[in-house]
Amino acid sequence: MLYIVGLGLGDEKDITLRGLEAVNKSQKVYIEAYTSLLSFGISQDGISTLEKLYGKPLIVADREMVEEKVDDMLLEARQFDVSFLVVGDPFGATTHSDLVVRAKKLDVQVQVIYNASVMNAVGVCGLQLYRYGETVSLPFFTETWRPDSFYEKIHKNRALGLHTLCLLDIRVKEPSLESLCRGKKQYEPPSFMTIGVAIDQLLEVEQLRGESAYGEDTLCVGFARLGSENQMVVAGSMKQLRTVDFGPPLHCLTIVGKTHPLEEEMLDFYRN
Amino acid sequence: MLYIVGLGLGDEKDITLRGLEAVNKSQKVYIEAYTSLLSFGISQDGISTLEKLYGKPLIVADREMVEEKVDDMLLEARQFDVSFLVVGDPFGATTHSDLVVRAKKLDVQVQVIYNASVMNAVGVCGLQLYRYGETVSLPFFTETWRPDSFYEKIHKNRALGLHTLCLLDIRVKEPSLESLCRGKKQYEPPSFMTIGVAIDQLLEVEQLRGESAYGEDTLCVGFARLGSENQMVVAGSMKQLRTVDFGPPLHCLTIVGKTHPLEEEMLDFYRN
Repeated sequence: MLYIVGLGLGDEKDITLRGLEAVNKSQKVYIEAYTSLLSFGISQDGISTLEKLYGKPLIVADREMVEEKVDDMLLEARQFDVSFLVVGDPFGATTHSDLVVRAKKLDVQVQVIYNASVMNAVGVCGLQLYRYGETVSLPFFTETWRPDSFYEKIHKNRALGLHTLCLLDIRVKEPSLESLCRGKKQYEPPSFMTIGVAIDQLLEVEQLRGESAYGEDTLCVGFARLGSENQMVVAGSMKQLRTVDFGPPLHCLTIVGKTHPLEEEMLDFYRN
Repeated sequence: MLYIVGLGLGDEKDITLRGLEAVNKSQKVYIEAYTSLLSFGISQDGISTLEKLYGKPLIVADREMVEEKVDDMLLEARQFDVSFLVVGDPFGATTHSDLVVRAKKLDVQVQVIYNASVMNAVGVCGLQLYRYGETVSLPFFTETWRPDSFYEKIHKNRALGLHTLCLLDIRVKEPSLESLCRGKKQYEPPSFMTIGVAIDQLLEVEQLRGESAYGEDTLCVGFARLGSENQMVVAGSMKQLRTVDFGPPLHCLTIVGKTHPLEEEMLDFYRN
């Protein structure tokens, strides 16, 4: 059996009892580290904390592992119980459908153990999850690559009065351009997009497109480290949030649509 | 401190370690039972299982309690630690913003402990949460009350190629019409909407409105008892799903929008 276990958002305490049970009965325990490593404070220390809690070693599945060696893990899961741990929920912001598809093709039984995802935890600010439209991802702009397909989606959501969740880019274990040229893998240091950078990019695109999808006075909610003990939630205009120091990762941002009175009342608690 | 603790979707094993810690240090533990009681199998037995796990008695907060006596609970939370347990996530399908607003007005500190919600657990079928539009609620139709505001929302989502999550009505502790007339509270037996009834109502409205928002050949995914050990997920047309026996509550339904190849591949595993 392959257990795909959501770890939740904060730290090692956010696993469920059901998840812990799966880990306990698994002969091998992998942890997916490439997509959301930063959110969980998974440094070498983070891993040790988890290993202490579980009483067994963890195999860190970085990007290469996931892409190249996943079938080995699946073949193990045909013979004994294996857990694959993921930060958040297995089908939240980062989906593991490809893993499930591969498992099913190899006739491996899969059990998903749910947990909180950023996709539902943003509800804490009081904006109803019902009233969110399509979610967008904001990629880091480079000199030559400034994709803006999110703009149209935000525009449509706002036309319908819906809120928009913006997931912000994370770059972990990206091979450096230099190393690719040399044919030898070396990695850029990990980086994550801050709310400030996200707002700058959003406003740059608004200025270029000029369709008034939003503007610097548009009400937003910034979230940092959702689910951890020092989570930060601040409501304000884009202009206001740009100047807020949200601290360490991960960050995400909601662009607010039309609000109900109870939503307004909740947001007031989070205004600067 | 008031801890608002999400219990997750399945049973007592879906609480997180962080949630359990909050319960352990709370002098009083309330459990919200009116909105999603059925989903969690919270009968008197369910409560006993939880009490055994926590080693302390639970105070069941039914609808009247929540509306009338909540301030008493909040005043307690000013003096000592109190946990308020909710099925799913505190800000998922059923939001507890009103409780937070009241707490903040009374200067009670609040900590939210996240968990899985139906709003993110539907991701298990392989349809990306990113690609959902506004969520709709389908209320039980009566002879005289057949509201259809969901129709327009589904139509708009589908026009954008987005998936639509339909939350299905639950009626627990509704005063009976007869008892209201007599001025004495008596309750209807609890009832929940099945996927079959939901599809019948959806198709009835489509026939009346005739705007081809969807039809009996529209691909959907039905979910029953998400997160529990006997959860059921079936993909098929409305016509097909109408004839499937999904068993005990809770049910919900996704109306599928445009799909990506990986989404298609995942859905294939769930086709009848």
